[in-house]
Parts: sequence; C-alpha cells; structure tokens
Amino acid sequence: MAGNTFGSLFKLTTFGESHGRAIGGVIDGCPAGLELDLEMIQHEMNRRKPGQSAIVTQRKEPDTVEFYSGIFEGKTTGVPIGFAIHNTNQKSRDYSHIKDSYRPSHADYVYDQKYGHRDYRGGGRSSARETACRVVAGAIAKQLLSNININAFVSSVGEISLDTPYHELDFSLTESNPVRCPDPAKAAEMEERIRQIRKEGDTIGGTVMCVIQNVPIGLGEPVFDKLHAELGKAMLSINAVKGFEYGSGFEGAKMKGSQHNDIFNADGTTKTNLSGGIQGGISNGMDIYFNVAFKPVATIMQSQDTINKDGEIVEMTGKGRHDPCVVPRAVPIVEAMAALVLADYYLMNKTIKI
Amino acid sequence: MAGNTFGSLFKLTTFGESHGRAIGGVIDGCPAGLELDLEMIQHEMNRRKPGQSAIVTQRKEPDTVEFYSGIFEGKTTGVPIGFAIHNTNQKSRDYSHIKDSYRPSHADYVYDQKYGHRDYRGGGRSSARETACRVVAGAIAKQLLSNININAFVSSVGEISLDTPYHELDFSLTESNPVRCPDPAKAAEMEERIRQIRKEGDTIGGTVMCVIQNVPIGLGEPVFDKLHAELGKAMLSINAVKGFEYGSGFEGAKMKGSQHNDIFNADGTTKTNLSGGIQGGISNGMDIYFNVAFKPVATIMQSQDTINKDGEIVEMTGKGRHDPCVVPRAVPIVEAMAALVLADYYLMNKTIKI
Amino acid sequence: MAGNTFGSLFKLTTFGESHGRAIGGVIDGCPAGLELDLEMIQHEMNRRKPGQSAIVTQRKEPDTVEFYSGIFEGKTTGVPIGFAIHNTNQKSRDYSHIKDSYRPSHADYVYDQKYGHRDYRGGGRSSARETACRVVAGAIAKQLLSNININAFVSSVGEISLDTPYHELDFSLTESNPVRCPDPAKAAEMEERIRQIRKEGDTIGGTVMCVIQNVPIGLGEPVFDKLHAELGKAMLSINAVKGFEYGSGFEGAKMKGSQHNDIFNADGTTKTNLSGGIQGGISNGMDIYFNVAFKPVATIMQSQDTINKDGEIVEMTGKGRHDPCVVPRAVPIVEAMAALVLADYYLMNKTIKI
Amino acid sequence: MAGNTFGSLFKLTTFGESHGRAIGGVIDGCPAGLELDLEMIQHEMNRRKPGQSAIVTQRKEPDTVEFYSGIFEGKTTGVPIGFAIHNTNQKSRDYSHIKDSYRPSHADYVYDQKYGHRDYRGGGRSSARETACRVVAGAIAKQLLSNININAFVSSVGEISLDTPYHELDFSLTESNPVRCPDPAKAAEMEERIRQIRKEGDTIGGTVMCVIQNVPIGLGEPVFDKLHAELGKAMLSINAVKGFEYGSGFEGAKMKGSQHNDIFNADGTTKTNLSGGIQGGISNGMDIYFNVAFKPVATIMQSQDTINKDGEIVEMTGKGRHDPCVVPRAVPIVEAMAALVLADYYLMNKTIKI
Repeated sequence: MAGNTFGSLFKLTTFGESHGRAIGGVIDGCPAGLELDLEMIQHEMNRRKPGQSAIVTQRKEPDTVEFYSGIFEGKTTGVPIGFAIHNTNQKSRDYSHIKDSYRPSHADYVYDQKYGHRDYRGGGRSSARETACRVVAGAIAKQLLSNININAFVSSVGEISLDTPYHELDFSLTESNPVRCPDPAKAAEMEERIRQIRKEGDTIGGTVMCVIQNVPIGLGEPVFDKLHAELGKAMLSINAVKGFEYGSGFEGAKMKGSQHNDIFNADGTTKTNLSGGIQGGISNGMDIYFNVAFKPVATIMQSQDTINKDGEIVEMTGKGRHDPCVVPRAVPIVEAMAALVLADYYLMNKTIKI
Repeated sequence: MAGNTFGSLFKLTTFGESHGRAIGGVIDGCPAGLELDLEMIQHEMNRRKPGQSAIVTQRKEPDTVEFYSGIFEGKTTGVPIGFAIHNTNQKSRDYSHIKDSYRPSHADYVYDQKYGHRDYRGGGRSSARETACRVVAGAIAKQLLSNININAFVSSVGEISLDTPYHELDFSLTESNPVRCPDPAKAAEMEERIRQIRKEGDTIGGTVMCVIQNVPIGLGEPVFDKLHAELGKAMLSINAVKGFEYGSGFEGAKMKGSQHNDIFNADGTTKTNLSGGIQGGISNGMDIYFNVAFKPVATIMQSQDTINKDGEIVEMTGKGRHDPCVVPRAVPIVEAMAALVLADYYLMNKTIKI
Repeated sequence: MAGNTFGSLFKLTTFGESHGRAIGGVIDGCPAGLELDLEMIQHEMNRRKPGQSAIVTQRKEPDTVEFYSGIFEGKTTGVPIGFAIHNTNQKSRDYSHIKDSYRPSHADYVYDQKYGHRDYRGGGRSSARETACRVVAGAIAKQLLSNININAFVSSVGEISLDTPYHELDFSLTESNPVRCPDPAKAAEMEERIRQIRKEGDTIGGTVMCVIQNVPIGLGEPVFDKLHAELGKAMLSINAVKGFEYGSGFEGAKMKGSQHNDIFNADGTTKTNLSGGIQGGISNGMDIYFNVAFKPVATIMQSQDTINKDGEIVEMTGKGRHDPCVVPRAVPIVEAMAALVLADYYLMNKTIKI
Repeated sequence: MAGNTFGSLFKLTTFGESHGRAIGGVIDGCPAGLELDLEMIQHEMNRRKPGQSAIVTQRKEPDTVEFYSGIFEGKTTGVPIGFAIHNTNQKSRDYSHIKDSYRPSHADYVYDQKYGHRDYRGGGRSSARETACRVVAGAIAKQLLSNININAFVSSVGEISLDTPYHELDFSLTESNPVRCPDPAKAAEMEERIRQIRKEGDTIGGTVMCVIQNVPIGLGEPVFDKLHAELGKAMLSINAVKGFEYGSGFEGAKMKGSQHNDIFNADGTTKTNLSGGIQGGISNGMDIYFNVAFKPVATIMQSQDTINKDGEIVEMTGKGRHDPCVVPRAVPIVEAMAALVLADYYLMNKTIKI
C-alpha cells in the first residue's frame, strides 16, 4: 500500500519531488455541484508558500495551481480533479553536498536504505514541498464544508507559549502578523525569537493549535477510524511533526475523573469541553481542538559532522534558503489536513443510517 | 468506510459489543507457515483481562479465545484467522440507569445521535472490551515479528511520573507489579495512588510509554502513511487516549535544531535519538519510542448530574466494577497495536524494491 | 491485500475452511436501524445448503447461522455484524487420498505452491463451503435493498438451454423445482440430465442468469468501479465460474451499432435494453441482467490419473458426496453477490452530490 | 469510494475528460530501481492513439506523455509517478447537439442523473480517452514484469471470427495489419468488413483475446480477489465491454467434468488447459487466456431519435470522427489492464509466506 493517498471517500493522491518537473495530485470523490472559488484556493496556497515574509525561507516559488479536470463551468462534476504545480525552481544547482552525504535528522539516509535509488535534489519526495498539494485539496474540502470553521494558529515558538484559552482569542488576528499567532504581543515576541535564531544560523521548533467549530454531531467511525485518530494521523503525516494531543491531551493524563468529566447541559452540549469535541471517536458538536508539535528544522547554517555513502565522516553546512521555524507556514497545512479528514468523515456519515 | 478494520496487508477486522454473545474478529493477510504459540496468545489476553489484580476492575471475564480457521497443524495457512471470545458475563443486569440516560464523557450520547439505535448494555460497541480482539491479533503479529522487541510500560499515573530514561530501565520488571511500571519504587507509589483514588470513588489518568527495539531500517510509507503517523493513529484509536508523541515529542517543539539533530555514527546509527527511531516517516534502525496519554476513566462512583433522552437533568452514580485507572491494563493493548502496525509495514516493505 | 473482504462501504470479510471448526464473517457498514428478518436469512441459507434435493450433494450440513453482534432488539445498530456457522461435519475422515495428492482441476496444487502449508481436509479454504457466508451477508443486503428485486435462475444445464427471454418467465416458479429453472418443462429436462450424469459418475456445467429490477438510476462508480465491472468480479469470485456477460454480452460483439443502440423513450427509459440496464458503468433504471457460466464440478466418481507431492503419477477416484451440477445451489449465491454489490454502490451513491 | 483508482499495491489513479486541459494520473507503488524505457511507453501509446490507420477514427491526438515525478536518472525511485497527457484537441467546437440531448446508448443521460452537472464535451469523463492513462501505467507494469508475455489480438469482428487455437498463431503478426489480428487472411476479411460498415455510417462489435505466458505459479488472492475475478473486473471496466470469459469460458458450461478436467503431468503442468491457467483463483503456471466482448460503438453516422433534457424527442446524427469498430485500438488497452492486474498480484504475492 504505497502511502500517497489520503482519505477513503474524499480522497487525495499526490505526486512530486521538490526539484522535479511538477508536483500535483488527484482529488477523487469530491461531490458534484460544488461551486469552486479558485481564488480562495490560490490564497490558501499563498499562506503556505515560501518567501511570504521575512521570517520564512526566502526561496521564490510562485506555487500556481493548474487544474486539469473535474471542474466545468466553475463547478465540480463529481469526477476526479487533477492538478499540478509546476516547479519553476528547477535550476541545475550544485547538489554534490547532499548527493552522496546524508544530512543529519533528514530522510536522506532512510530513503537510500529503503528504496535504493533516490532523487536527492532538495530532499526529493521527502521535502515539505509536497504539502502544497495538501493545501490545494484542503482548500476544496473547506469549500465543501463551508459551515464548519477551521482555525489554526501558532501556539508556541520554542519556549514562548501562548497560554490564553482559545476562546479568548480573536482568530481574525491570526493573519495580521507573519508568525500567525492571534495574540499580537505574543506574535511580536515569537517573531523576534525567530529572527534571532536565524541570525544564529539555527532553527527552532513550535506548536500549532487548531480549533474546529460548528462540526455536526456524529462524525467518526469507531473502533479504529475514530475521528481524533484520523486527525492525529493526518497531523503526524505532516513533515516535522512529533506529537498530537486533543482536548485535555497530555494534561488530561494527570487529572481525576471527577475533574475531567464534561457534564451535559439539557440540550446535549457540555458545560466544559475537556473531551475536545469528540466522545468515543465521534464528534459531539462541541469545538474540536488539538495541538501539534513541530520539531526544529533539521537544516541549520552551522557546520555539523555527518556521514557519506561510504560511511566516512564528513563535515556539512546547510546551504540554500530554509525556514528558521516551520510553524508559521505550517498553519495552513494543519488546516488543510483537518479539512480533508472532516470532508471524508462528513461523506462517510451519509451512509450510516437507513 | 465503516471503521472496524485495521491495517492493509496484515489486516484485523473486529466485531462485538460488551454484553453481546461474543466479540471476535478476522485476521487476514497473516503469512503462511508461521508456527503459532497459542499459550502465548492467551498469556497476552490475561495481561489485559479484568480481575487480574486488586487495582483493576474486579469483573470476572475469562476471555478465552477460540480460533475457528486459518491455523492447521499448529501453523498458519495464509488464509483468514477467524476467532471469537464468548461473553460469559451476559447476565441480564439492570441497565435502566444507562438505557435512557447518557453517562458524562461516555459515548452513549454520540452513538445515539449517530446511529439512532444502540446496544446500551455495558457501553455496547464503545466499551473497551473490544480491545481484547486487538490483543489476540497483536499477539500473532508479535510472533510474526519475533526479532523485534516491543515493550510498553506505565510511565505515569496522575502526577506520579517515571522520569528515568528508558534505556536505564529493566523491562523484565514491568510484569513484576500490578501497575506494570518497571521501576519497583515508582510502581509502589503509583499503586498506592490508584488504591486511594478508588477509595474516593474516583478515577485517574496516566501515560504508557512504548519502546520498540531491533526494528529493520526502511519501514514506513511516506507521505501519508509514515510509520509514526500510523502508530499515532493506532494508539489514538484505543479507548481513552488523548495524546501521542514520539521521539522528542512535545519537548522537541521547544528545542533548537543544533540541539535536536541526531548526528550519525559511521555505521548509520546515530549518537542521540531525539528522532525516536523514525526519519521522514521511515524507521532508521534506532529504537522507536513513544508516549500515549490516557484520560481518567469516565465512570466514577460519585453522583453526577447528566441528561436523559428527553433532555431532562437526572442524577447518576456509576454502577458495576470499573477500573480506577486504565493504564496497567492498557500496556498490552499498546503493545498489540504497535505490533499490528509493524507487521503491516513489514509486509508492505517486501514490495518496495524490484 | 489478502483477498477475503468484499465491498467498500457495505463490507463483508469472511473466514473458514470446509472442515475447520466454523466458517463465518463480519459485515461492516450495514446502516443502523434496519429491522432484520432472521428467518429470511436462514431461508436463503437453506436454498444453498447441501442435501436439499435429490440432485445435489447429499452431505448433511444444517448451516445454522449464529449472530454475535451488531443486532440489538431486532435491528441493526450500525456496528459490525459478526456471525459464525459451526461445522458439524468435522468428523475425522480419511483424507489420505487428497493429503498428498492433487485432485485434477482443483486448487490443491496451487494452494500448496502458493502458501506452502494447507488444510487439505475437504478442500479447506478453496471449498465452496465459504459461499455460505456470502449468502448470509447477501440476505442482509437484500433486506437493506427491499425495493430492488433480484432474481437468479438456472438458464442452462450442459447443452439444455432456456432460451425464453427473461421477461416472459414467471420468477415465482424458480423455486418450484429442484433445478431452480422457472420454466417447468425445461426444469424437468435439466433435472433428468443431472440425474443421468450423476449415474455416470460424472458432472456437468451450466449457466445462471440473474435479473435485477427496480434499481435506482445512478449506481456505479466510473471509471474503474463501473457497476457491471464489480458485478462481474463478484460473480467470477464464486467457485467454478468461467464467464460473465451482461446485456447483449458476447452476442453484442456480433452486432451493428444501428441494431444495438437502445433508443430512449421520453421518460428516459429505453425501447430496447441491449445495454442491460447499465450505461457507462452506471445503472440507467432499466432491468440489469447478466449470465454466469459455471464449469462442471471437478470431483468426479471416475478414476483419473493425477500426481502426488513427489511428482509421481497416481490414480484417484472421487470420494464423498459431491454435486453432479452446481448451478441449482449457485442460484442463491449469485443473488447474494449481486445484493452485496448493489448495497455497496447504493451507499456510495449517497455521497456523490453536495 | 470514488472509482478512479485501480489496484492495491501497484495502484493507478487517473483523471481527465475528453476535452479538458489534460488527462493523466498517478502510479503509486511501482517498485524502486526499475529502469524505464520511455520509448516503449510512447510506442504503446501509439498503438492506442487515434488516426493510426484508415480503419480507426481520424482524429489527430499526438498523445504525448509527460512524466512529472517518480523517475530519476532513468529509473523509478519508488515514489509516485505523476504524468499528464495534454489535450491538444480542445478547440471550442460546436457541442450544442450533445449539450442538451442524450446520445442513445451513451453515458450522457446517466451522468446527468447521477452527478447533476457534467462536462458534455466529447463525452467528458465517460469518453474512452481516459484509457490512454491505462496504457501509460500498463506499459510500466509490463516493464516491471518483463519475464511475462502478454499478447492480445482481435479474435473477431462482427460475425467474422478467428477460430484457430491461440497456440497455432504467430503473435508477431498481430501488429502486421491495422486490425491487429495475427492471421493475415482473417485480418484482411475483418478490415474489409470494417471499411464497409464505416461506409454504411454504422459501427460493429468484436472480441479481443488475450494470452499471458510465463506467469509464475501462485498469483491470486482468494476468496474474493481471485486472479480471474480481478482480470474480469479490469476488462469489464474498459469502455464498451459486455463480457469476459477465461479458459473454457461459456463453452465450459456445456461440458462434462470428465472432459473438462485438466490432467496433471508429473511436473505439475497439465496435459490440457481448459482451466485457462488459473485454479481456485490462483495462477498455476499454464498459459492464462481470456476473451473480451466489445459492443459496437454507439455513435453512428445515421439519424436516430433521442431525447433532450426536457424529455422531448429530437433527431440526432453522429458528428465528429469516430471509430467504426473499437477492437483494433482496444488491443493495447486489454494488454495494459492485464499488466496492471498482474503487477499488483505479483507484488501481493511477495507477502504471502513467512
């Protein structure tokens, strides 16, 4: 089961390497009759693309999506939506430093071991460039689920953490700063931290929180395909992610049942929401919220020892234009993957009752 | 896509409710020619079963597995392995308190909303009783992967946390105490905490850590079916799980790249292992380790307000024999799900090169 | 992808060998709230079971289904329906003649070659006994699709062919004779032919036609999962099937477009139906009809040369009680598989439009 | 389960409409390290493309494949192979005759009913143009299975049938004539028949036979995914196919077991091969052979009555350049689908034994 397809009914299959001719994909199962706003799709792409601000990689990739099929007279037709994003950045660069050597904490070594033959240019298939395709599909999924609000934002950069409960935040401020943190003061702190880390030739990790509101009750397919299990897989499949927690998360493991239980109101809503909007793997109508941990980018502008194909120790220094911190650009990716999961489960849920 | 199948090549499909006639399943795709140790399977079942110690639920369920097919003269034949565990505990109890009322932080309400008609007895399909089937299949997966060592253990109960790095622990001590913590002193503390919480009629959360050693390099199917993404989904699909992190996990999000990178040794191993044995979604031969957070059990022996089907507020007190803390019994379940993931990816990896 | 699951949304997974403890399966994805008539299910089983008439195998297998889960208070709950049929015919017989020798035109040889280790008793997994599980699931699918009429019948036995167009037949007569041919005169001829062939210690092939009426327009998922493609696969997966054709079938290949085109009536129905109720892989509301060819049973009561595991030529004569002709018992199996396909595609079609 | 993916391990997902910007697809699961002959792929495309001879449609479509990913330095890398074929024939034609009217025995009507919104230009997604993508993937599958020989050829056009047993044919002659029949005399007869039918403004059906030689023993995944069942589905998914039979096929249904059984030679081969190279759904190493029936093309150059969207009867005459008989161009498509099935089952079979 080659792993380049996500979803069962709303299904995305992607292809493409960082420095190949194009990346792209096929969205199969998008219902017919959906009026598509193509500008909104490109807008989502722009939120992810390199070079958008001073604190992300300065590579220039226009990331323009071309749709090949599945859309006719502005509406989906129910047949597969094929698309491609041509790589304009394919110039024959000098890759000798990664052709035969394995960058520490990158996938170079395991790709070579697993496949025996790899496209080493810019990380090839293991590059986060592939996430652009997820954003395309996620943008369409968002349009399918126009009643559901999906808002991700940066909740920490390194040790700097946004501790305000999410319902006290104004999500409309998320895009007001390059960090994508809806608290402007915290955002400034985070931005400063990222600038500093970049000067050091280093990188730093962070977390992204995602809040999903107005979800219909009933999404989720126990016992294995619980809604949060698929959300977790979706997030963990994003490059650099090390952890996922929803609702009370790891803090919940420290609590007592009498503290943790969400007591019902008469209308089926709950007074608290430590459950994070999901019970037994099924959405209960309350807000879904979760945290995603991203490790620091492995490419640093400092000299490190590493090994080459012959098992010799060699010295390596990062080249090219890399992100000092991925979380600002990860925000739209987290939203996209959440949208893909919800679209899939929304369609599945249509088949549950006679 | 009804969600009761796990895996693609080594594939488990389960059925069964807490108080129905039987639970069971079908394991399809187990390779032929595997000599099966049936006692080992039952032994794994016994590690999960109720009533095994003073700090778990005192229900009596023998949990005896009957195999119906797929095994002949002691060896697998490559055809599906059907099995059932008959429920001996089906006595017509008084379920009136949960028939029409929804227990807080249980799945009763969402099952009713999603399916319209549910078996309310003992939680029905949403009961953790279904995990017994996972343990059966996991025990077979472990036998398939006899070279790989999978060791889970309790790493915290409430605020009591085992902070010793795992490589300083002696896993052979895990089964020496009812908590399943390999540090006897911590285990005693945890046990005491659980006894006390039970006296209070309350419950408490905890975490389980799992360490997988001697994994071949190359398991994992990017970009969506990364090894840790599937492990995450597997763990999150277990009842009561709220979070998953591997390698550096959420701590990694606070680190700098210069601290976090795992520098290679000449033989391809790494000096540190913040990556947690997985790079770019593919095992790199180092130890895989991850943490799983479990919330406190929702059924408490204290009175709580809740609602009934008519949306009236009613008072409810937990009945029956429930676990004050699930983590001791969750240890074999975590191991089983890890084994299922690895077995599946091990088979997939046979198809990757010409 | 071990091949023991059929369907995507209405999904049957089966297990079991001819002479193991039990055969059975799991039906996952049956919508919740379906009132099940269990007697009808057993009735369908009885149509398939051995010993039902003088012209089928005289083995005695009661084929009683036990349901383990998924049904509560007479209705489906939307969770998996587990079931088993215990083999009562497991007596330790003498299998020495097939333990080490390979019966001609049976699967013994290829199972040994593929799996290396096989349950040789009564054909093991390759026995048509597994089709009993298909009939169980098909009976439930029929109940889900209560508006759709699925009628299969024997259309030929050897050279004796029923050439009456299906719309001139009275399907209520199908069960009036042991052959399951709705034309009593032809049925008598066929029955006589089967009796004679049995006396010769020989077997004979035949065909089953299936007519599906009142199908909603729109079922089918091009381009690969066309409705007739999945029906074809479903039929070809039944033991002994050698061919499938729908609508005009092989005769259609001899025709001209001007003869073959089905001209529309104003209401979207067509004046003729050479298309067989499916256009471009999607049901058009007209009757779906198809033919299925079954080869003669390979076990004959005559001496044949064959080989043993050591590649030596040995003589073999069929033992046991076998069908001289499978088509009478194949009728309910064909209907069951058709019902499974339709149920699956009926659910899929709920997800196609916004 | 939107139906645009074929295969489980060697997996093709396609997109594209007849007159959209491009058709294309993603091949996921092709093993790494396969040296690809791109000219051979284009050669296979040319066998399918329009305008190749006087007896097929005279449309001009160069059908040039562009590969976007998955191939590096001439070899597959194990990651998805994305490709596109740009439609050069997109000129804004006059489609008014099919925009609002439904062509008889075409999919126009059912697409409108199922999806509610369709790309009517040139048949949109229901056009056989999509089969070009199958030929691309099939050509790669053939290269993966370089030891297996897959030879399809035209076995009948209308009533003109090639009755020579396939082992008396010289497959190297298949490409020697525009009909793709390896018997030059029959080919001439068939060609003449097609020319005549075209003059009449009519079309005619035909059959394609396919012979697969040198297949390893053991391919096939009972009980549902039998090798011939998947081959049958593969063939039935091709546009215009009405029937599939393998080995003795429908003739086998008339035979007696004593005639039909294939008696073993000492080496496990069989003296006859009525089984068609498959026993119990698993290849037995003998030649696999099957027949595929194609209906006459529905678009004829004669006036026919049909209906429009408003249910009014309107007159319609075929426009454009259409095939008078599809079987010559279907030959490479049949081979491609056969190759896809075999590649998938070849990979699956690597996971069967410990």
